[in-house]
Amino acid sequence: MDNNATWTSWGGVRPELAPSARTFLMDVLGELTPQEPADITAAIVPASRLPKVARAELVDALGADGVKDDDRIRAEHAGGQSYVDLVRRRHGDASEAPDAVLLPTAADQIASVLAICEAAKIAVVPWGGGTSVVGGLTPLAGQHKAVVALDLSRLDQLVAVDKTSMTATFEPGIRTPAAEQALAAQGLTLGHVPQSFERASLGGYVVTRSAGQASSGYGRFDDLVLGCRMTTPRGELDLPPMPGSAAGPDLRRLVMGSEGTLGIVTEVTLRVRPLPAVKHYEGWIARSWADGVRIMRRLAQTGAKPDIARLADEAETRASLAMSGTDGLKKRGLDAWLKLHGVAGGCMMIMGYEGTAGDVRHRRQEVRRILRADKAVPLGAGAGSSWEHNRFSGAYLRDTLLDNGVLVETLETATTWSRLDDLYNGVRRALTEALTAGTQLPLVGCHISHLYPTGASLYFTVLAKADAGREIAQWTAAKHAANAAIIAAGGTASHHHAVGTAHQEIVGPDLGGAIGLDALRAVKSQLDPAGILNPGKLLP
Amino acid sequence: MDNNATWTSWGGVRPELAPSARTFLMDVLGELTPQEPADITAAIVPASRLPKVARAELVDALGADGVKDDDRIRAEHAGGQSYVDLVRRRHGDASEAPDAVLLPTAADQIASVLAICEAAKIAVVPWGGGTSVVGGLTPLAGQHKAVVALDLSRLDQLVAVDKTSMTATFEPGIRTPAAEQALAAQGLTLGHVPQSFERASLGGYVVTRSAGQASSGYGRFDDLVLGCRMTTPRGELDLPPMPGSAAGPDLRRLVMGSEGTLGIVTEVTLRVRPLPAVKHYEGWIARSWADGVRIMRRLAQTGAKPDIARLADEAETRASLAMSGTDGLKKRGLDAWLKLHGVAGGCMMIMGYEGTAGDVRHRRQEVRRILRADKAVPLGAGAGSSWEHNRFSGAYLRDTLLDNGVLVETLETATTWSRLDDLYNGVRRALTEALTAGTQLPLVGCHISHLYPTGASLYFTVLAKADAGREIAQWTAAKHAANAAIIAAGGTASHHHAVGTAHQEIVGPDLGGAIGLDALRAVKSQLDPAGILNPGKLLP
Repeated sequence: MDNNATWTSWGGVRPELAPSARTFLMDVLGELTPQEPADITAAIVPASRLPKVARAELVDALGADGVKDDDRIRAEHAGGQSYVDLVRRRHGDASEAPDAVLLPTAADQIASVLAICEAAKIAVVPWGGGTSVVGGLTPLAGQHKAVVALDLSRLDQLVAVDKTSMTATFEPGIRTPAAEQALAAQGLTLGHVPQSFERASLGGYVVTRSAGQASSGYGRFDDLVLGCRMTTPRGELDLPPMPGSAAGPDLRRLVMGSEGTLGIVTEVTLRVRPLPAVKHYEGWIARSWADGVRIMRRLAQTGAKPDIARLADEAETRASLAMSGTDGLKKRGLDAWLKLHGVAGGCMMIMGYEGTAGDVRHRRQEVRRILRADKAVPLGAGAGSSWEHNRFSGAYLRDTLLDNGVLVETLETATTWSRLDDLYNGVRRALTEALTAGTQLPLVGCHISHLYPTGASLYFTVLAKADAGREIAQWTAAKHAANAAIIAAGGTASHHHAVGTAHQEIVGPDLGGAIGLDALRAVKSQLDPAGILNPGKLLP
Repeated sequence: MDNNATWTSWGGVRPELAPSARTFLMDVLGELTPQEPADITAAIVPASRLPKVARAELVDALGADGVKDDDRIRAEHAGGQSYVDLVRRRHGDASEAPDAVLLPTAADQIASVLAICEAAKIAVVPWGGGTSVVGGLTPLAGQHKAVVALDLSRLDQLVAVDKTSMTATFEPGIRTPAAEQALAAQGLTLGHVPQSFERASLGGYVVTRSAGQASSGYGRFDDLVLGCRMTTPRGELDLPPMPGSAAGPDLRRLVMGSEGTLGIVTEVTLRVRPLPAVKHYEGWIARSWADGVRIMRRLAQTGAKPDIARLADEAETRASLAMSGTDGLKKRGLDAWLKLHGVAGGCMMIMGYEGTAGDVRHRRQEVRRILRADKAVPLGAGAGSSWEHNRFSGAYLRDTLLDNGVLVETLETATTWSRLDDLYNGVRRALTEALTAGTQLPLVGCHISHLYPTGASLYFTVLAKADAGREIAQWTAAKHAANAAIIAAGGTASHHHAVGTAHQEIVGPDLGGAIGLDALRAVKSQLDPAGILNPGKLLP
């Protein structure tokens, strides 16, 4: 199993299905059909197309250890962590493997890499933690002769900390746990905790505009970036750390969201905060989705809000209770408690606070006033701890579900509060219709997990019986339907997963239509005239 | 005097100098030399170069009332409100007047205007409230045959309010008081209150990345913009309102700060807030600039901060007390109160809170704890009201000072907390040296008025004896020196006044150096290939 750690699984650990989970899945999806994943050693990897001359030049620039083209490492870099990526690899298909994997150890090697690749017509796919779920890492050669993955994992240092300004400067390939560990030694934190926390890199967060589970309090990654350096085929873009400015358009915002198509981020300076003295997470039940949405909106529009605010709809609440193994006595206790409060079913909410004791106490008080006014039922800190304990588990559980023949994928969007209901209903309907097979309905759950005063994110999770052998076509049809529903309801193509290849078909309105796409293409042509950087991504 | 309302004065009202102000100025600058401004009716306006055919086409598009080329309106549009602009006009110099002023009444007329101007090789300077202090409105024709001011003041409507999402959509030419009045009728506010509040337009705030006096609480204007529409010579960029997104780079941030060089903003959707139930402003004295800066930093880096937080240095504190007429009994009372607390001189701080009663109470408590820990001396709500009463008065007072032969100008920058001292000292030294004439020193005051967790703005005010007849050369030399000092200390070219022509020489680093400038020029070439939009601004 360990063999497959980065091949067909998230972390090499496949949790057992709890009995309640198994029962629940069979209730919803019918009989489960085990599916054994292929081993990476059996992966079919095409011969490398890397030209010999270019290979020699790259070895000159990076050392022999910096240029790898054995089948295994190439297979490991054949895409990211989307359902489609995983299914393909589970089938032993590494046909999209890059022709080589480059592993620079210093930022100044990157300019050489780009020069060599531009001259030799080799496409470059920047690679951080390898966690893209939107096809952002698929090694597409485009018009070029070959494609390499530029793996930044050896650029993994904390470069500097400025405790007066509360900023820290990092190399791009450092993964979140290492970054947080280095900061914690100085009493600091980024507070950026997406579900991909364990594997994702800081550079990846920059170029995909990540948002973490505590974004309602700590802000999106966009909000943490003060400055960055990006190497392009035409030279370095060096945007110094600045707290606020009116000196022309903020080009940091052009780097953020560029998904490796404009250059390679080599350094980023981020806002840091003191490690919170207190972390308090608690569960609540809203009586209905509508009640819950109203509560979320009120929280977002008042001053004192939680750092983490999550609302699951009825379907996701039911599923997550079952999947986390809340059965037997515990489940009956919860039902009785809710019945006592006149709630059947309901929608799970998590409220999380991080800060000083006084700050947390004050905000909890304010928030509880809003929750009580809307007749939400408290579940206490136990439900909060349980959520915290499981905050990264979805990615592991997905592997187990795939092993059981279940189609499991997520997608996300956002819009303003006034359009949120239409978006919720539209996407749910689209996914349900697309994945219904005969009388067999999929399970489509949804949660809100990122609050803004003006709107919120919607994060959908889909479970369906996988159409064995046709998994990719099955999901692709559903994804198109969801994309169309997002556009129809005025949602954004992605709230925090980025565009990659999955959202190109609907990214137009987010980028201002044809004129915005032209503007972005003009920047691309200027910085990467040969088009070697991550071709086939972001821009339709 | 009324004749000159928008010609050589801010508002047609020239406040009398208080006796204490006159004494103070003579103490600092020596004898005052009255200077009478020219009347607009005496302004020398060159003949219009607007080609006849283009004029006829513009009349077709806008109606006769929409195309004005009389001397008076042209003179009124000959630049903005910088010291250089005012001195030029006070000398009766309208040589830079635009060849015509266009006044569209509907957004869809703007595409026609741009098409006509592009075909006829006419440069277009977008005009909102006319308050640029960085040369952004100077009607430069560049390579073109003529130049027109595109005055957006008739596009002044509140288009829509979405109370659920707490957003409001406006036309660009609406001035802040009208916008706030329309919102107040629905219990809402933008909370954006720069010193130019009374005259500046919302569209102007977008393209110059304005920050208001309450930006520490309400955020910069950047933070309020959810969506916008911009007409370019190549079509419309329509960026829908979105609370948060990871769908590629945020092109709204390309519109913000574009200063009319990429297109004309025709609509903007902004975050609004409930009108605050309570507004409370109070004064404090920090024992020294260093103490005050440390207090500001602590406030910025804790959760509960004021919405308005200002710190004046010793020089500005002394000057503003004298200039606001705080003399005689009141001044002696203040001195006695400070002496009681062991403070001689000291630095004035203003703390302002806007929100619900509970929110204001909570934050005041938290802030007072920090202020008391640093031994700041409370001056009470009287000092706060006095600041509020005078919050827009600087622009009026400047006219009186000009009438008295005083050079008066402001400039501003920002940097991270750790570099703030160097920036403060560097700019102060540069301005002092540049404006010292013999033994006659200028007065250089500074305040912090925009807090970020990672840094702050610095806003300098300079008073010197004007070198009559050579005012522009005198100030230009000082401005170059200040610009050089800003660059040397790692400050931003502008924190909230934008680039215009005044900061082109130092905007490079903010835009990431040559590569960033190239990227921005590529966008410009794409959207405005003929280069008719505000030539000679922003991009060096």
